[in-house]
Amino acid sequence: MPTEFEIIARYFTRPARTAVLGIGDDAAIVRVPAELALAITTDLLVEGTHFLADTDAARLGHKALAVNLSDLAAMGADPRWFTLALSLPSDDEAWLAAFARGMFALADRFGVELVGGDTTRGPRTISITAYGTLPPGLALRRDGAAGGEDVWLSGSTGDAALGLAHLQGRVRLPDAAARHCLARLETPLPLVALGRRLRGVASSAIDVSDGLVADLGHVAERSAIAVEIWLGQVPRSKAVAECSDAALARACLLGGGDDYELAFTAPVSRRAAILALAAEIGLPLARIGRTLAGNPAVTVIDEAGTPVPVPRAGFDHFGA
Amino acid sequence: MPTEFEIIARYFTRPARTAVLGIGDDAAIVRVPAELALAITTDLLVEGTHFLADTDAARLGHKALAVNLSDLAAMGADPRWFTLALSLPSDDEAWLAAFARGMFALADRFGVELVGGDTTRGPRTISITAYGTLPPGLALRRDGAAGGEDVWLSGSTGDAALGLAHLQGRVRLPDAAARHCLARLETPLPLVALGRRLRGVASSAIDVSDGLVADLGHVAERSAIAVEIWLGQVPRSKAVAECSDAALARACLLGGGDDYELAFTAPVSRRAAILALAAEIGLPLARIGRTLAGNPAVTVIDEAGTPVPVPRAGFDHFGA
Repeated sequence: MPTEFEIIARYFTRPARTAVLGIGDDAAIVRVPAELALAITTDLLVEGTHFLADTDAARLGHKALAVNLSDLAAMGADPRWFTLALSLPSDDEAWLAAFARGMFALADRFGVELVGGDTTRGPRTISITAYGTLPPGLALRRDGAAGGEDVWLSGSTGDAALGLAHLQGRVRLPDAAARHCLARLETPLPLVALGRRLRGVASSAIDVSDGLVADLGHVAERSAIAVEIWLGQVPRSKAVAECSDAALARACLLGGGDDYELAFTAPVSRRAAILALAAEIGLPLARIGRTLAGNPAVTVIDEAGTPVPVPRAGFDHFGA
Repeated sequence: MPTEFEIIARYFTRPARTAVLGIGDDAAIVRVPAELALAITTDLLVEGTHFLADTDAARLGHKALAVNLSDLAAMGADPRWFTLALSLPSDDEAWLAAFARGMFALADRFGVELVGGDTTRGPRTISITAYGTLPPGLALRRDGAAGGEDVWLSGSTGDAALGLAHLQGRVRLPDAAARHCLARLETPLPLVALGRRLRGVASSAIDVSDGLVADLGHVAERSAIAVEIWLGQVPRSKAVAECSDAALARACLLGGGDDYELAFTAPVSRRAAILALAAEIGLPLARIGRTLAGNPAVTVIDEAGTPVPVPRAGFDHFGA
């Protein structure tokens, strides 16, 4: 049976690359470039709450890091380092090897370095904290939106939630749609390049992890503005558009979490720049609504301007 | 039933003090002073592995932060910020209020600021990541010891493990000793001032969390030197010295974890400076052994120079 120290050495220790001091001491040491601020985000994934016991370990390693890099992207930060605290019920080496492989493949793709961690016995729990850098003052905060701005969305939402519904047997997707939606659910890609390029362009941003309406609700709350979403303008993937259960598809589109798209606001004067950016980085960016002075709230309206019912609020691990 | 957002607002959100942006966005933002390096450490505490279900929540809040601040102290870093990822089986508000009270009392004592976190449902698990700053090049690394140096220890070891043995009914301590040992176990104080003052003085340092021999073993391993501990010179608290079970007391002294004292090495030329430091900060610092060129290993010898058996290796959540 490998010890905690053998597990760390075997699966998680790689030579320090950008860190001054990496894994193996009381603390890691890094240097933040003097002209940059440090963004810090942390997520806790618990078996049974965020993933199932039989979730593929490599994809889980990918996702555990991806959700943190997505938070950094939503701040406009360049990801640099991360730490990993891992609790495991047993020393399942095949699981560990696959988890590390999935995690490091994504880390390498974005040039982020694992600098420290903790490994212990307990219910399977993954806590990653990720660190990014950005020019101070250019962070894409949730509280930066003003009334009279555009609301934008990258890509499309609803696929991950539709994939989960398929897994849970609540809908039966055609094979191609199922493959697409499960990939969105299990191996989301953080929109790091988009976040970086939105610095100085967007007035606020958030990643869509709780659901489009709920996450824009956080922006509305923090910015003290109202948000109006035009249902007809919210992009739909083929899987969502052609789903046999239209009510489910709409609930996923507006209320499904885990897509890790970026929703952001920007002044009207930035429209051309944003469309040019979309073309340049090859990522669809759709104008899906507007902000208004008013009480913090999100309204979804159809093409006749009639408010449509909004599905359940975003994912809340403690809410009803 | 409070939502995740209400829990965060009610128990964990305080106005940002030194952070550029605190709780409530996709990521926190801090500025690391340009001339300083950033030390990062993370720990995961799991119910059933690291604490019992009936552990007092306020003391647990204290300890969860203390163990991380101790790691920063062992690097010689000044603690600045921390993040908290918390998994809870239910929304036990009395527990949350007490946990937050204990955690913030310690945070305030050392001027560290909670800047972000994550709260979710699951088995009770506490993951804190703490951040400190220090002048680059002055970190108290584990790999800095050389042969021919002194080995030093702050305070005394064994109390926390003896307190645990008392709790588990393996020994019956007198009341005063029990109170002392349980306080050591449950509300350890990180030796922040000592760590800071050892910068440029100690050649290596580690906090005693796994046990004195095991932790000095980490230093021996990383520094590629041998460590010799003089059993007669290892300080004993009254509780350890007067324990009715001498074998248990010795096992706790050498192998008991959770004391969060600092063990460090320093050149012989630093002896007077270290003794002066001990007097100045009012903390006993004892010279308990020496380092030698040789294979990485820790030997404990008695006053006749005879090696004595070393109790089990340090705490390993996965080892036998």
